Amino acid sequence: MRPTPCDLLDRVRQQKPVIHHLTNWVTICDCAQVVKTLGASPVMAHALEEVAEMAQIASALVLNIGTLTADFVEAMKLAAQSGNRKGIPVILDVCGAGATALRDQKCLELLNEVRVDVIKGNASEVARVSGASVITRGVDATEVAGDLVLLAEKLADQCKATVVITGKVDIVTDGNTTYLVKNGHPMMTHVVGTGCMATSVIGAFAAVEPDLSLAATCALACYEIAAELAAEKASGPASFKERLFDCLYNLDHETVDRMQKIETCQ
Amino acid sequence: MRPTPCDLLDRVRQQKPVIHHLTNWVTICDCAQVVKTLGASPVMAHALEEVAEMAQIASALVLNIGTLTADFVEAMKLAAQSGNRKGIPVILDVCGAGATALRDQKCLELLNEVRVDVIKGNASEVARVSGASVITRGVDATEVAGDLVLLAEKLADQCKATVVITGKVDIVTDGNTTYLVKNGHPMMTHVVGTGCMATSVIGAFAAVEPDLSLAATCALACYEIAAELAAEKASGPASFKERLFDCLYNLDHETVDRMQKIETCQ
Amino acid sequence: MRPTPCDLLDRVRQQKPVIHHLTNWVTICDCAQVVKTLGASPVMAHALEEVAEMAQIASALVLNIGTLTADFVEAMKLAAQSGNRKGIPVILDVCGAGATALRDQKCLELLNEVRVDVIKGNASEVARVSGASVITRGVDATEVAGDLVLLAEKLADQCKATVVITGKVDIVTDGNTTYLVKNGHPMMTHVVGTGCMATSVIGAFAAVEPDLSLAATCALACYEIAAELAAEKASGPASFKERLFDCLYNLDHETVDRMQKIETCQ
Repeated sequence: MRPTPCDLLDRVRQQKPVIHHLTNWVTICDCAQVVKTLGASPVMAHALEEVAEMAQIASALVLNIGTLTADFVEAMKLAAQSGNRKGIPVILDVCGAGATALRDQKCLELLNEVRVDVIKGNASEVARVSGASVITRGVDATEVAGDLVLLAEKLADQCKATVVITGKVDIVTDGNTTYLVKNGHPMMTHVVGTGCMATSVIGAFAAVEPDLSLAATCALACYEIAAELAAEKASGPASFKERLFDCLYNLDHETVDRMQKIETCQ
Repeated sequence: MRPTPCDLLDRVRQQKPVIHHLTNWVTICDCAQVVKTLGASPVMAHALEEVAEMAQIASALVLNIGTLTADFVEAMKLAAQSGNRKGIPVILDVCGAGATALRDQKCLELLNEVRVDVIKGNASEVARVSGASVITRGVDATEVAGDLVLLAEKLADQCKATVVITGKVDIVTDGNTTYLVKNGHPMMTHVVGTGCMATSVIGAFAAVEPDLSLAATCALACYEIAAELAAEKASGPASFKERLFDCLYNLDHETVDRMQKIETCQ
Repeated sequence: MRPTPCDLLDRVRQQKPVIHHLTNWVTICDCAQVVKTLGASPVMAHALEEVAEMAQIASALVLNIGTLTADFVEAMKLAAQSGNRKGIPVILDVCGAGATALRDQKCLELLNEVRVDVIKGNASEVARVSGASVITRGVDATEVAGDLVLLAEKLADQCKATVVITGKVDIVTDGNTTYLVKNGHPMMTHVVGTGCMATSVIGAFAAVEPDLSLAATCALACYEIAAELAAEKASGPASFKERLFDCLYNLDHETVDRMQKIETCQ
């Protein structure tokens, strides 16, 4: 039987996987905290001399180009090659793709030079990576032409990866099975780091479940249910963020089962 | 008629300007969050290869030397040159000026090599940049010889820029018109990042109002009114910081109009 | 008479020492905030050109290898050499030691090339630095063979330094006098940065008391009493963290005297 979000949440809490990050400097603390909040073990390390070795003690690798430099992406490649050798899932957040030529180029390099198992971004970022026409506006970009589900499925086929497009409705697909996650709350868009943290949560779930589309789907459902709970009594973005961590920490089976809004498309 | 703080707050919320930052690693998340809390769109990017391009999609550029390195300042120059070409306001937080020769030298280089539209710091930092005698003590420095308003006005004339000195009373001047902002709360001095966030708020307001002294004045008034509100029920620096974001997010016209303590000197 | 935790807390609040950090990018804001919460003055600076000069205006230097690179460690050495010349305490958090060869090698280089006055880590990190056999699992490592107090005392003798091993019971020793601190709360293990912040607090106390083992002991007691208070009404890791700062800010003599669980071993 297919594991549920609760099953995977339990696995994360019990197995406490090490999640190695090469992420951006803006949300690095939030990414580490969200992983720890789940009961898993975050490691942030980017030195060229150690990333390959660090990836060997990890159960998933999370890459995020939010504040990339050329050197930093070289470290990502070394880490990902090591992760590929070990066979752990490599998750790439294409944060800010489309904003500059450097970001587009480095996304392509990563996708070409290492195996990326999960590609994650918002609609305009993923559209850009897929080559679709898109209008970008910094890291909060949104306007995208074309049907997003088809775009995601096409990119998944092309890259032989799971593709995750987050938004009001999240799309997760490996090209065969496509899931929609309809959890979440608008307050998430007012908090810096909610997207990056989603990627880290996907990393933690991907570490404990080989079906990466299912893992990403369950990860988003759990995370966004916590966001819904957090929003109930929040009076603004900062109290919301505090409650998001607390609610994720306390998330229980009954709540997840009751609130999850996952739809399977095919 | 001169726009009020509420007018500019509305413009920020409606226009959602992209604010490009090259800032320090300590408060980078707070700076991004404060901009997002205002409804604007923060972008943090520092790679030499992309900063010029990123500045082209921004409506203001915020530079902060808090954790500078030589390379980082080179990226600031490229971003600022690009911002200068586009005609967007460039705001420089001279964080820690006076603490080391490197900081003094890099502030001078920035002021000489690019057009800085707003120079912002505390009394000792701005005094140092202006060449006045000053005793510095890390980034919390305070003792300054001489009259601060005159010092600010002289520096504004000299640099053809708006000068902002934050403190118990904030001084904002372009050399012609000088504003004093008497809002704020002592708890701000117990929270890391309140100064850096003020600069980011100034950036967001400067993105929507060409009179940069007025923009900076209104920015500080709104931000510091939120701080006054936050302090009311805070039990320490961390609950104060959380409330600061929430209060800024919820700031309304009636409150701003009632609480603002802006004085025009001449 | 030996100073009490309250005596040292008062000294920090009155003397407001500047604590210079070269620390990791994950918890840099938390480390700055915890120092400021104590009433002291944090400075974060890592440029090769300024670290030596910045250390000269500081009263303690805190090094943390959590997100080290080779260049960053060179900056640490310059800062430490400067701190050594000035005679201020140098505290090294061996964060993640044992996880990679780079971390082990750079710890050894630091211990060999500069004078480190306080070596601080969790059991597996300190064991690794001491050469004991150890199983490491990222930065949350725990399993260590052998008796920890003896291990700490031996390393203290060997390095002529104070050694601090944090855990459920903290061990602090200079090889002659050994203290145990039995304060703290399990919720600390669910929050990123509690270990790094402990090191910064040790830095602040070491800045005001020449007996560094006593300083570290009193620092941990105060910090962990605040954690106990914070846990009382916390509903998860984020509300706990917020309360930790607030409780540390408000910590009073009566509470510290009543709650402190310091034991002197010999």
